[in-house]
Amino acid sequence: MILFIQFFKKVKVMIYFDNASTTMPDKTEVNHFIDATKNFFNPSAAYNVAVEVNKNINNIRRATLQSLNASTLDNFVFTSGATEANNLIIKGVTKKKSAKLIFSAGEHPSVYNVAKELAGQGYNVVFIPLLNNGKVNDAIFAKEMDENTAFVSMIHVSNETGAINDIQKLVAIAKSKNPNVVFHSDGVQAFGKINVNLSHLQVDAYTISAHKCNGLKGIGGLYLKNGVNIKPQILGGGQEKTLRSGTENYPAIFSFNQTINVATDNIEKKYNHVKELSTFLKQEINNNFFDIKIASDDNCSPYIVSLMVGDVMSETLVYMLSEKSCYVGNGSACSSKNKNNRILESMGYGIEDIKGAIRVSFSANNNIDEIKLFLHALKSCIDEYKSKVLLKYH
Amino acid sequence: MILFIQFFKKVKVMIYFDNASTTMPDKTEVNHFIDATKNFFNPSAAYNVAVEVNKNINNIRRATLQSLNASTLDNFVFTSGATEANNLIIKGVTKKKSAKLIFSAGEHPSVYNVAKELAGQGYNVVFIPLLNNGKVNDAIFAKEMDENTAFVSMIHVSNETGAINDIQKLVAIAKSKNPNVVFHSDGVQAFGKINVNLSHLQVDAYTISAHKCNGLKGIGGLYLKNGVNIKPQILGGGQEKTLRSGTENYPAIFSFNQTINVATDNIEKKYNHVKELSTFLKQEINNNFFDIKIASDDNCSPYIVSLMVGDVMSETLVYMLSEKSCYVGNGSACSSKNKNNRILESMGYGIEDIKGAIRVSFSANNNIDEIKLFLHALKSCIDEYKSKVLLKYH
Repeated sequence: MILFIQFFKKVKVMIYFDNASTTMPDKTEVNHFIDATKNFFNPSAAYNVAVEVNKNINNIRRATLQSLNASTLDNFVFTSGATEANNLIIKGVTKKKSAKLIFSAGEHPSVYNVAKELAGQGYNVVFIPLLNNGKVNDAIFAKEMDENTAFVSMIHVSNETGAINDIQKLVAIAKSKNPNVVFHSDGVQAFGKINVNLSHLQVDAYTISAHKCNGLKGIGGLYLKNGVNIKPQILGGGQEKTLRSGTENYPAIFSFNQTINVATDNIEKKYNHVKELSTFLKQEINNNFFDIKIASDDNCSPYIVSLMVGDVMSETLVYMLSEKSCYVGNGSACSSKNKNNRILESMGYGIEDIKGAIRVSFSANNNIDEIKLFLHALKSCIDEYKSKVLLKYH
Repeated sequence: MILFIQFFKKVKVMIYFDNASTTMPDKTEVNHFIDATKNFFNPSAAYNVAVEVNKNINNIRRATLQSLNASTLDNFVFTSGATEANNLIIKGVTKKKSAKLIFSAGEHPSVYNVAKELAGQGYNVVFIPLLNNGKVNDAIFAKEMDENTAFVSMIHVSNETGAINDIQKLVAIAKSKNPNVVFHSDGVQAFGKINVNLSHLQVDAYTISAHKCNGLKGIGGLYLKNGVNIKPQILGGGQEKTLRSGTENYPAIFSFNQTINVATDNIEKKYNHVKELSTFLKQEINNNFFDIKIASDDNCSPYIVSLMVGDVMSETLVYMLSEKSCYVGNGSACSSKNKNNRILESMGYGIEDIKGAIRVSFSANNNIDEIKLFLHALKSCIDEYKSKVLLKYH
């Protein structure tokens, strides 16, 4: 009996609700990677088996474009991930020093920090504030957008709140002011979660990543509409049609193809399941946690629910939850070193709300029972946190 | 009996002599990758299991520094490969617009093309020609090197010929003229093949790659001596101590650690074995192929033997050899799109020699029997090539 209890103590159930940060790779995607390591030849080599690998990469490029409902005349540049892809388009796009560059205030750090660097280099960089629902303020965007604006980047789905920007509408506003503007969207939290149809969105560039959709880390890419010219940021042997040098990571590219197939398969069914999860979580929070504010409204992607827990430090709370095998994010994990949260701030929240902000993010593999266990753990952690703080200060 | 012959026709023996381009990954390294995919948590997250992954990465960073015989106070930045690492140091190093930047003429395209770009931006970029043995001309370097020189990059082992530069001596020349110069060496063809001891070499920065030493593609890195400041080239969440953003590719980093262990284990024994192979190849070439010139002398790394086959087009010859399951490079595979070869040119060879240049590059897994089969195939391909050309033109 004692052994039995010890066994159960050891086999903890992991509740992983940090899928906007990264996901558990699917076995099929790992297996695809393993298979492709056998095809190890350098795609730039002149011999038969290497030419074959090069052909496979170009076939996967075309399949990727098709899965995005883009034209196969467009391009897709494989990169080491979304961060590199975002850097590539923002730095690489042709622009005069006098041009205006417009970003939303809700961009991921891999866009936001590049924008800040360009501002430091003397470019006229403008950030458009968010509405309190987390979407970009399109009225302000329409005012700022002018014929001198060379580049716009607006995140598709916020990694912080799940707010979905109406990219099609934003592109229309942009192109009405300057038909030559290059419009980019970071689609990392959109692809594989909501329907991404680039021929509808009409963007010039779009970023996706594998490891946010149960794929592998180290692979992602940048969609580029036919005719959009950019300068490469990593120079060398001229791979990826000169846009991204370095020996192609064929196993990762081959696995990415499988990630895309799995992520876009049954996307509505998975969406509806996750919608049930987020609705249930929000209802339970509203009914039982009166101190917690929910920053993600019902129009947000159900995959992300941003909570402001009140009088706690989110980093400590996140760690305490992990001691109970519940894993959630404190804001974007990519920016965990920043104590403030510029996205919630732009939505109008104050520091008292923001300091306790945690992010619950689902995959289609999660279920209602996990949410029940999570809520139980959350209650117990908040109680424990407050009792410790009370002990310390009273 | 017919079935038996058909079976033997199908089971072709692959003779892979293009190891300077890329290598077949070891099974243990693939297995390490697979194991680490289970530890999928984002190292930037605040919770326990993620903090653990972050610690593992830093442990591997220290182990990597130790394997290079560097101080653990130094830094090692994990990148998507050597091309990115070379771009990072050259673009990232602090330098005034008026500063002189010195490169050898024998650099890999991932150094050479970045140098060319900086020249285009107005930097004073100087290329030091090669001696006819493939090493950099250190007398000319000593003349060019001055107190205004902010940065030097000299390849350790040539990817084209295997020529080994005396980096320790070149660093001493550089530092005697300007103690503050940042000296980088691309060690991709050195690491795991010859002994690399950074405390002896005294470089400020050094690049290595996994996939050239039977590791995986998509992972490499940049050694940085303590005190060398560089600007990141990929901005975002501030990973790799802010020097390289993007979610860390932990499975690749974990596998890279194994690559390093395997590559540095028994390095002398493997060197001696490969030395036997290259000596045998050169003897056979000298004795039986009177038209072929050998660009790699006996001081070169035995892992690379550059041959100039005479009156053939190397790309065609390489393809013909691959039809007999023999795989060699035509110059650097990374630059197969360039028909000329600036490295052989800098060594004094003319276009008539260069157009038939092929590169034989070994791994420690190759053997003498493979060389015999290769020589047989080479002879038959050259004969076939020449008879076809004769048929065409006579």
